[in-house]
Amino acid sequence: MQDGRFRSRRWFLGFGAAWSAALVACRGKAGAPANAEPRALGAAVSPYGSRSKYEKTARFFNQNTKVPLEEASSRTPLHDTYGIITPSSLHFERHHSGVPEIDPAQHTLTIHGLVDRPLEFSVDELKRLPSVSRIHFLECSGNSGGEWRGGSGESDVQRIHGLTSCSEWTGVPVATLMRECGVRADATWVLAEGADAGKHDRSIPMKKIMGDALVVYGQNGEPLRPEQGYPLRLLLPGWEGNANVKWLRRLKVMNQPAMSREETSKYTDLMPDGTARQFTFDLEAKSIITRPSGGDRLVPGAFCELTGIAWTGRGTIVSVELTTDGGATWEKAQLQTPVLPIAHTRFRFPWKWDGKETLIASRCTDDTGYTQPPLPDLIKIRGMNSQYHNNGIQAWKVASDGMITNGNRA
Amino acid sequence: MQDGRFRSRRWFLGFGAAWSAALVACRGKAGAPANAEPRALGAAVSPYGSRSKYEKTARFFNQNTKVPLEEASSRTPLHDTYGIITPSSLHFERHHSGVPEIDPAQHTLTIHGLVDRPLEFSVDELKRLPSVSRIHFLECSGNSGGEWRGGSGESDVQRIHGLTSCSEWTGVPVATLMRECGVRADATWVLAEGADAGKHDRSIPMKKIMGDALVVYGQNGEPLRPEQGYPLRLLLPGWEGNANVKWLRRLKVMNQPAMSREETSKYTDLMPDGTARQFTFDLEAKSIITRPSGGDRLVPGAFCELTGIAWTGRGTIVSVELTTDGGATWEKAQLQTPVLPIAHTRFRFPWKWDGKETLIASRCTDDTGYTQPPLPDLIKIRGMNSQYHNNGIQAWKVASDGMITNGNRA
Repeated sequence: MQDGRFRSRRWFLGFGAAWSAALVACRGKAGAPANAEPRALGAAVSPYGSRSKYEKTARFFNQNTKVPLEEASSRTPLHDTYGIITPSSLHFERHHSGVPEIDPAQHTLTIHGLVDRPLEFSVDELKRLPSVSRIHFLECSGNSGGEWRGGSGESDVQRIHGLTSCSEWTGVPVATLMRECGVRADATWVLAEGADAGKHDRSIPMKKIMGDALVVYGQNGEPLRPEQGYPLRLLLPGWEGNANVKWLRRLKVMNQPAMSREETSKYTDLMPDGTARQFTFDLEAKSIITRPSGGDRLVPGAFCELTGIAWTGRGTIVSVELTTDGGATWEKAQLQTPVLPIAHTRFRFPWKWDGKETLIASRCTDDTGYTQPPLPDLIKIRGMNSQYHNNGIQAWKVASDGMITNGNRA
Repeated sequence: MQDGRFRSRRWFLGFGAAWSAALVACRGKAGAPANAEPRALGAAVSPYGSRSKYEKTARFFNQNTKVPLEEASSRTPLHDTYGIITPSSLHFERHHSGVPEIDPAQHTLTIHGLVDRPLEFSVDELKRLPSVSRIHFLECSGNSGGEWRGGSGESDVQRIHGLTSCSEWTGVPVATLMRECGVRADATWVLAEGADAGKHDRSIPMKKIMGDALVVYGQNGEPLRPEQGYPLRLLLPGWEGNANVKWLRRLKVMNQPAMSREETSKYTDLMPDGTARQFTFDLEAKSIITRPSGGDRLVPGAFCELTGIAWTGRGTIVSVELTTDGGATWEKAQLQTPVLPIAHTRFRFPWKWDGKETLIASRCTDDTGYTQPPLPDLIKIRGMNSQYHNNGIQAWKVASDGMITNGNRA
């Protein structure tokens, strides 16, 4: 899929100076369509549908690597997905020890530690407790990380930024469960541990646990997908993906963080002075133009809708601005409703390329007043020791032949 | 799946007079969970995921029938889906000549008839036009129809009401396309025709076409599923499913309706006096308790969340009321946000069954002020000649042993 896109994907109709003229010139006809060829009766109804055999869009993962594919990541085809819901089959993956195959009848969640009544819940029991559904994005803290040090040659939006996805999650507020357990007065942190081979674990402040944290069992209307933690995962709206522990098997209530591997040697930001920022949970406001983007080709003078996604872990996106002249001027894009908190927000912007080389980019602002910065501003503060938590602006370069490439190094 | 549910599905925990006590009694433990058994490395990342092998929930269709399964319907498992998004694989189906297998590279949409410039669009061209995504339900006009004449023995929510589903649809406003074609002054109706074997067609008033009608190519973030019209379908928000023509191949602009088979001999409401209501497009406000529902079993004294969905083709749901005493009193349920126009709205209501036989039911009100009526009120006006467009209240009967069955005939 990736390679084909670079060869022949001409953008929009491109047969005239305006898109309406283009349509007429291209496809104008003087009457009714030919009668459809006679068709045989189609397929019968079925218990569980699948996509058309003509659709091949896939998650991308690097197969030319020494990293075992059980400890790898795969990336959402942001260019080829629509709206704000990511299809569950295309939700990005990041596993540290592969996807375990768990029988939900054998799986339980235990809450223990600094509580009055340790409790163990079966999956069925959790499904019968008062639940909520919320549309939230998840993003890996390593998303877009390759750009920090100048990139590794990736030029398309899937490979650069595909570690973000958005789903409707359904589950039980962790606060409900904690209240049943009776959290002791000195409890301040909770260790969440998964049932994968590596027992992935992270320490979470009690305030988040008693806030909007969920134990989710549903994703886009059906049970969680195996790659997303089936049958149970912790969901921490707006916090880095890694902390949203999958295949959740226990929550241990503690009075300090556990200082586990994934919050000390990894997922920290090593600063220029040798100290490290630890527990960078919130994901800051970020946006990307997804269509057209790296690998597309524009046609001069043809109308072209620029569309993309914006999101923030801190609340709600209030505006997205676009530049089509390399940052000289910025104009507001249209935000597609509903604009939901801590969810991908779809933006759209009508444009016509004049045929001259340029840079196009988006930047967003959230309801805390924070505006997505240029990547050099982030590097100025954090230096080059780390590449997590990159929410810098992504520029796309439009060459004079219309070809779009990564513009961050233009 | 259906049969199993009737045997052993006891509701909630049920070991005490309150659910917190029940949890402690059921699962209290004095410490940490046993260490998980050592697990091997799990599965690798993958291009396109699928659900767990332990999940078997399926669309229901009647296999003991003389109706060919190519001309049948299948029903969404409303009891076993969460939130407001229906998984695409479980979206209900209703086909008149089966699901055609269409190569999108060969498929086009033609607009012709009373226009200045007939135009033909390829699927790729449509995808590059300015688009919108909207979360909307679709419901078959025949949904819940079996209840009209006293039902045919169905007792579970999937078989009675499973012809409604809700997706995020992405497509191009039909008005945009029509403006390019130049609609003539005398144009008042549009005939939409599909590319299935039977060339399913319906006449649509021009006002709807120029309003919120879309030609959709996306469903829940990926291309439309074959059963939903791949690669293109007409989406008429809030209008009966049958008019949302799938596998859309042409829109013919006319000055009168075509009076096609599916708008004359079918999908009309035959009244007691022998006249028929034709072009009943809008679907009126409706709600159902989906969990617990027919086939579930309650435990006396145990806490139990009642949840379900409400929707209206006319706008937005403003309230859902529940009765747990056979209609003597009604109380407001909580509506889960976001509450979106012309979309399934999830409601929730905390309850504890006292162990006595009763009827439970929901009724909703939309922002036109209309309240979902009891089914006998509809029958009083429309008589027994037809069974389309049933939006009457669904009651569930709770027997003294906790078993829930269809309460409409109680």
